[in-house]
Amino acid sequence: MAGFQAPALARLIDQFNRLPGIGAKSAQRLAYYVLSMPEEDAAAFSNAILDAHKNIHKCKKCCNLTDDELCPICKSMNRDKTTICVVEEPKDVVALEKTQEYSAMYHVLHGVISPLNGVGPDQLSIKELVSRVREDNVKEVIMATNATAEGETTAIYISRLLKPLGVKVTRLAYGIPVGGDLEYADEVTLARALEGRCEL
Amino acid sequence: MAGFQAPALARLIDQFNRLPGIGAKSAQRLAYYVLSMPEEDAAAFSNAILDAHKNIHKCKKCCNLTDDELCPICKSMNRDKTTICVVEEPKDVVALEKTQEYSAMYHVLHGVISPLNGVGPDQLSIKELVSRVREDNVKEVIMATNATAEGETTAIYISRLLKPLGVKVTRLAYGIPVGGDLEYADEVTLARALEGRCEL
Repeated sequence: MAGFQAPALARLIDQFNRLPGIGAKSAQRLAYYVLSMPEEDAAAFSNAILDAHKNIHKCKKCCNLTDDELCPICKSMNRDKTTICVVEEPKDVVALEKTQEYSAMYHVLHGVISPLNGVGPDQLSIKELVSRVREDNVKEVIMATNATAEGETTAIYISRLLKPLGVKVTRLAYGIPVGGDLEYADEVTLARALEGRCEL
Repeated sequence: MAGFQAPALARLIDQFNRLPGIGAKSAQRLAYYVLSMPEEDAAAFSNAILDAHKNIHKCKKCCNLTDDELCPICKSMNRDKTTICVVEEPKDVVALEKTQEYSAMYHVLHGVISPLNGVGPDQLSIKELVSRVREDNVKEVIMATNATAEGETTAIYISRLLKPLGVKVTRLAYGIPVGGDLEYADEVTLARALEGRCEL
């Protein structure tokens, strides 16, 4: 493959190829696209990478990504400070914010407990969560980790840490996705939906 | 959506979102991935973009992308200089080189004639091709534009320009893809495959 491709181009393709979900063909397509962009757009792209890397860090309180000491949600005066929703990743905050149904606080773990991948509780921001519950006047912690084995384990682990502190620990409901067909729901989901049934 | 996301992060997501084939979700995933990269990897990515943009330009002869005056293929001593394969984009050169069946020259048009998109022959590197045919001792020009209406039109347009110069102009064969099922071939392809049948 090499030999007939300019090194600077090969390097750019390689850089795109390292990104998750970007294969060799997409990397090539993206690299050619970047080359076809006006000079200033390429500079803006290049700067955005450096800039984000330099300025973005974890919020001191909720560990979500921010460019300030506290993220806009933690700083906000209009949010219920007594409820914390615990999520795995910053993108889960984005997903929950999109519902426009939640107006309390978040806590981002930055992962799940996964012994297979060598991730223990100490690598997650669990300590920070415990001290928030201890120090702030938190009444409820909603576990919103993913519905995977690891997400569950993490939720159970954290709830065992928090319950002795006298806080209510809840979990997102399991059930059939809205618009979903019973026929296509797996048995475990259906069983959970039955279990969690509520009065009409 | 905005408001709770740091501006530097939003800008990075936006930059990824501008790339072709990268939607909002992928852009977010890629941006978070870039943030999770070590500092020096992010710097390398950022530099690769600027670097490619600064150093890569069109080869003086074949208009393929290169960081030198002439691309490695045009500079090579081991290639047949009397045959030129005309392609739409630099990535087509990559595809043809991968076959390892072609060892002559290329010419990259950087597009196709497309009146609907406002692309006329003058925006493509057709002039350069004509002067190559005129000045170098070219015996055959292989049209390898895509098998689309626009690719065809461009091939026919160029062949009409070149034929008066006494050069042989050919086109890639149409037919059933290798490994393809007759059942799934469309009628036009099948008709072309019949038309182009050859003796066994």
